[in-house]
Amino acid sequence: MPMTKVYLRKGRSADERRAISEAIHRALVDVIGIPADDLYHVFHELDDDNLISAPAAFGLARRREAVFIQFCFAQRPAETLQLVWASVVANLGELTDLEPSDIYLNLVPSPSENWWTDGRVLDTRTGYDARMDQSS
Amino acid sequence: MPMTKVYLRKGRSADERRAISEAIHRALVDVIGIPADDLYHVFHELDDDNLISAPAAFGLARRREAVFIQFCFAQRPAETLQLVWASVVANLGELTDLEPSDIYLNLVPSPSENWWTDGRVLDTRTGYDARMDQSS
Amino acid sequence: MPMTKVYLRKGRSADERRAISEAIHRALVDVIGIPADDLYHVFHELDDDNLISAPAAFGLARRREAVFIQFCFAQRPAETLQLVWASVVANLGELTDLEPSDIYLNLVPSPSENWWTDGRVLDTRTGYDARMDQSS
Repeated sequence: MPMTKVYLRKGRSADERRAISEAIHRALVDVIGIPADDLYHVFHELDDDNLISAPAAFGLARRREAVFIQFCFAQRPAETLQLVWASVVANLGELTDLEPSDIYLNLVPSPSENWWTDGRVLDTRTGYDARMDQSS
Repeated sequence: MPMTKVYLRKGRSADERRAISEAIHRALVDVIGIPADDLYHVFHELDDDNLISAPAAFGLARRREAVFIQFCFAQRPAETLQLVWASVVANLGELTDLEPSDIYLNLVPSPSENWWTDGRVLDTRTGYDARMDQSS
Repeated sequence: MPMTKVYLRKGRSADERRAISEAIHRALVDVIGIPADDLYHVFHELDDDNLISAPAAFGLARRREAVFIQFCFAQRPAETLQLVWASVVANLGELTDLEPSDIYLNLVPSPSENWWTDGRVLDTRTGYDARMDQSS
């Protein structure tokens, strides 16, 4: 039951934001196996004065189009997270004009028992949503 | 010293948001025993383009009035969280027109030592705010 | 690779927000040893109806100018966090008109492997950004 926040400067169209959302969602469905309807994305469009970042970071120039995507879901192993990051970056490259250096990714962990919504059933064996792909 | 964020689509009156806040606060006071003045709620009113969620999720239709409430406080046992969730849902039903299927709840854990404000005194025995109900 | 969110009521100038950002960044560079270009700050300027807090809390009056600063980085020991808090409060006192009772601080922990950006290299020994001061 992930929840994802996207921080970006104003100026991207609704279609572009929708494409960013699609890129994120595909990655979570493909890599972590979340159900297709388990979708909650928030965009924070910010004035330049309200998003302060370095024009170059980690040795690379950073464009004002850069996005910070902050995921919230239960902690996964570092290897799984690497697959999530790679999938998000690849999907953004395919669906938007964002380049790898435009992308910041972070997971804030929140364990499965810390989520509630009506109709959600946990698999008592896995602790995850009972509908999730057993391989994930 | 909880901090709570509420995500919702634009269109709810200030009185409705105040009632949502009251429902949240009562639950945290009643179930977790936080002091009445330990209140910090933020509302993010979002354009439809900036809040992307599935119209039906976990087998239930989800109205555009739905709210996502993200709590931040020190991890509590799953049993306590179930009591918090039940209290929030009951209070929202009493104070607002929100139905259970309109409500998403999540706790992002942040331990007691990760919070600071002037005047806060920790109970060295419990690690919590010294003013908190000892039963919580 | 910290990410920091600042919540405040509308009415602070861009220069004041920039000074708050500078106060935060100096503290993270000085105490935790993050690289100077490792900077990502978001400001949420909120209408009064969207920021609900107690006018007095923990025995102290709280002004409407109060700010809530929510950090996100890998968990540090409580002793280190105390140094971060002290540094942020001191810097805000020097660079802005904020008083200690105007300041709320919180760390949401997210371990080092939960972050990705292009060009970031982790030190396999420390698990932190390879550029970080070894003493931190």
